Formats: sequence, C-alpha cells, structure tokens
Amino acid sequence: MDNWLATLKTDTPQLGFELAIKLSRMGVKYTQPDMEVLKEGRKKYDNDPGFLIDASHVIATHFQTIAAANNYWKP
Amino acid sequence: MDNWLATLKTDTPQLGFELAIKLSRMGVKYTQPDMEVLKEGRKKYDNDPGFLIDASHVIATHFQTIAAANNYWKP
Amino acid sequence: MDNWLATLKTDTPQLGFELAIKLSRMGVKYTQPDMEVLKEGRKKYDNDPGFLIDASHVIATHFQTIAAANNYWKP
Amino acid sequence: MDNWLATLKTDTPQLGFELAIKLSRMGVKYTQPDMEVLKEGRKKYDNDPGFLIDASHVIATHFQTIAAANNYWKP
Amino acid sequence: MDNWLATLKTDTPQLGFELAIKLSRMGVKYTQPDMEVLKEGRKKYDNDPGFLIDASHVIATHFQTIAAANNYWKP
Amino acid sequence: MDNWLATLKTDTPQLGFELAIKLSRMGVKYTQPDMEVLKEGRKKYDNDPGFLIDASHVIATHFQTIAAANNYWKP
Repeated sequence: MDNWLATLKTDTPQLGFELAIKLSRMGVKYTQPDMEVLKEGRKKYDNDPGFLIDASHVIATHFQTIAAANNYWKP
Repeated sequence: MDNWLATLKTDTPQLGFELAIKLSRMGVKYTQPDMEVLKEGRKKYDNDPGFLIDASHVIATHFQTIAAANNYWKP
Repeated sequence: MDNWLATLKTDTPQLGFELAIKLSRMGVKYTQPDMEVLKEGRKKYDNDPGFLIDASHVIATHFQTIAAANNYWKP
Repeated sequence: MDNWLATLKTDTPQLGFELAIKLSRMGVKYTQPDMEVLKEGRKKYDNDPGFLIDASHVIATHFQTIAAANNYWKP
Repeated sequence: MDNWLATLKTDTPQLGFELAIKLSRMGVKYTQPDMEVLKEGRKKYDNDPGFLIDASHVIATHFQTIAAANNYWKP
Repeated sequence: MDNWLATLKTDTPQLGFELAIKLSRMGVKYTQPDMEVLKEGRKKYDNDPGFLIDASHVIATHFQTIAAANNYWKP
C-alpha cells in the first residue's frame, strides 16, 4: 500500500481526531480492500445507530493513541 | 468542518465528561454526516438500553483521554 | 445539568468503583435524558446477562480512569 | 454495600487476576442486585461462548488496572 | 485453582502474545469452569468470525498489559 | 508455532499499523487454527460492516500497544 501514515503528530486536537477517523477507516480497508464490497456494505448500516456508535468507539480508541503521541497538545 | 475542538483542557472533571460526550457524538457525525438520517436512526434506539450502554462506553473511552490530558484535574 | 462531578479523588478503591458506576450511568443519562424512557428500557434488560456484562465493561473502563487519578490508592 | 474492596494490591499476578474477576462480577451485581434474577439470567448464557468471551474482556480490562496498581508485580 | 500465573515477564513478544491468549482463555474458564459445557459451546462458534474477532480483541487487551509489564521488550 | 513476532519496533507508524493488523489476525488464527474453517467463515462477513468495524477495533487496540512500544515514533 502507498505511504499514508508518516507521523502521528498533528497541529491541533481536531486534526488529531480527524487522523483517528482515518486510522479507523484504514483498519476497515485493510480488512476488506474491495471498495465495491465496502460501498455495498455501507448502504446497510448508514442509518443503523448501533453501527455508528461502534465506529465512534474505534475512533475513540485511535484518538487515545494520537492524543498521547501529541502529549495531549499541551502548550 | 468548522473548528470545534481547540483544546482537551477543561476547568473541571464534569466539563471534561461533557467534552467526552461531544467527542463521542462527533465520531458518529463524521461517520454519518446527514443529520436527517441520524435523527431517523436515533428514533430506533431511543429506548434500547443496549445502544445506550454502548454509547456510554464510547464516552468512557474519550473520558480516559481527556482525564489524562488534564492530569486528572489534580490540584 | 447540575454540578455532579467535582473531583475524581476518592478515599478508597471501593468508593472509586462506585464513582465509576455513577459515571457509567451518567453516560447513559446524558444520551437519553428522559427518565421514563430509561425506566421502560431497563425492564427489557434486567434479566439479560449480555447487557449486564456490557454495563460491567463500561464500569471497568471508568474505573481505569479513576484508579489512575487516585494513583491506585497507594499509601 | 459492605466493604469489599480495601486495596488493589495483591501478592501475585494470579491473585490480581482473581481480583479482576471479582471486580467484573461486582459490576454486574451493582447493576442488577437481585440475586434471583442474576441466577435466572446466568442459565441462559452458561453455554454461550459469545457471552463468555465478553465476560473475559471485562476481566481483561480490570486486570489492566490491577496490574498497573501493582507495578506489574516487578521484583 | 492451581498456580498458573507466576509472572507477567516473558523472554520475547511472541511468548507475551501467547501468555495473552492464555489469560483470555482463563477468563472464560473462571466464568464457566465446566469443561464439557465449554467444549459444547465451542462447536457453535468455531466458524463464526464475529466470535473469533471478539476473542482476538480480548487477546489484544491482555497483550497491552503484558507488553507494558515487559517494558515492550526494549533491549 | 514458528517465530513470527521478534520485536514490536517498527521504522514508521505505517509499519506499526500493519504490525497491528498482523497481531489482530494472529489472535484469530491461534483461536481457530484450521485455515479452511477460517476461509469459510470469512465469506460470511466479507460484506458485513459490523464485522469490519469490530476488526478495525482490534487493530486499534494493538496499535495502541505498538505505538507506545515505539514511543510514538517521536524523532
């Protein structure tokens, strides 16, 4: 796969949160690399709050890592 | 998206908890940005304790991060 | 909401565990503030061990945070 | 409730693991204090590996806390 | 129960990973000590990827603890 | 099993992420070593977003460990 993750450092907490989202998605993409299958699957859960909260949980787990990597963006 | 997360610092543990709730919701919102779909979905789980406890788990995960970022609000 | 979380410090591990329970419940309550709906939902899971173990997991996650905040109650 | 958790310190990792089990069960017990209901519920999941692995996950989460509290039982 | 966990120290990351598997299984075994029931249950999930990924999650959680206990096997 | 995990150190965050994927899969493989059964099971979840997000969560948990082991790849 191409180089897509050069560093865990981000300038702001929000950019860190968005990086956490990217990592969550990349975990899905590595597991199921076929984009067509992914798009099909996504239609099923788009309005399923149980899925959405699970996705939010994965983001939260990655955000822990990224926040620690940035020393919580302390000044 | 607009700037919505400038810092993880909060004055009190309770404000940190409320920020954890915000992060949990933003994880959902980034995954499903269509507010109408979100509102529809929410009707389904409003009285589903399984969903509510999962939501509480995501909040707990973010609260870990925020509490660490605030050095647990130690005086 | 009223002030309900002034500190993460507790005198004993058991009080820390009970605070973890409170945080778990507050995560549910913020997500679904309608007490009547909560009570209705609770009837469904009262004898559902799958729900109870999920609730116990959220408590465990909050207890990690509170234990760290109290430096594990080391003398 | 009676005093049931005076310390997170244990002499060995195994005792720490057994304390993690106790904390997992107490999380269930605080959520559903009626022992008769608990016993009824338990019959349902006794041979459900999905439940058993979830229970094992809660134990793992508490064991993280207890291991940290004991500095991993390093000599 | 017999002494089965004397230390969290292992010589290599792989041995640490295998110890994490052992802890995951012991969490199940303490919850359901009847080996016959366990074997029966196992037949149900043997080809259930949802169960297998949950089992992998518990292993990951224990591996965090064991890796920290070994200071990540840094030379 | 052969030696497959000699170190948690990686040169870049991306290689660390890919190691996290490997650990997630090894957790599955140790639990169900029969490759034929695994392949059969995989067909079921290939287009199941709930499974994919759970797999992504396990990766996130291992990535926390690996990121800490590499001191977050700080220069």
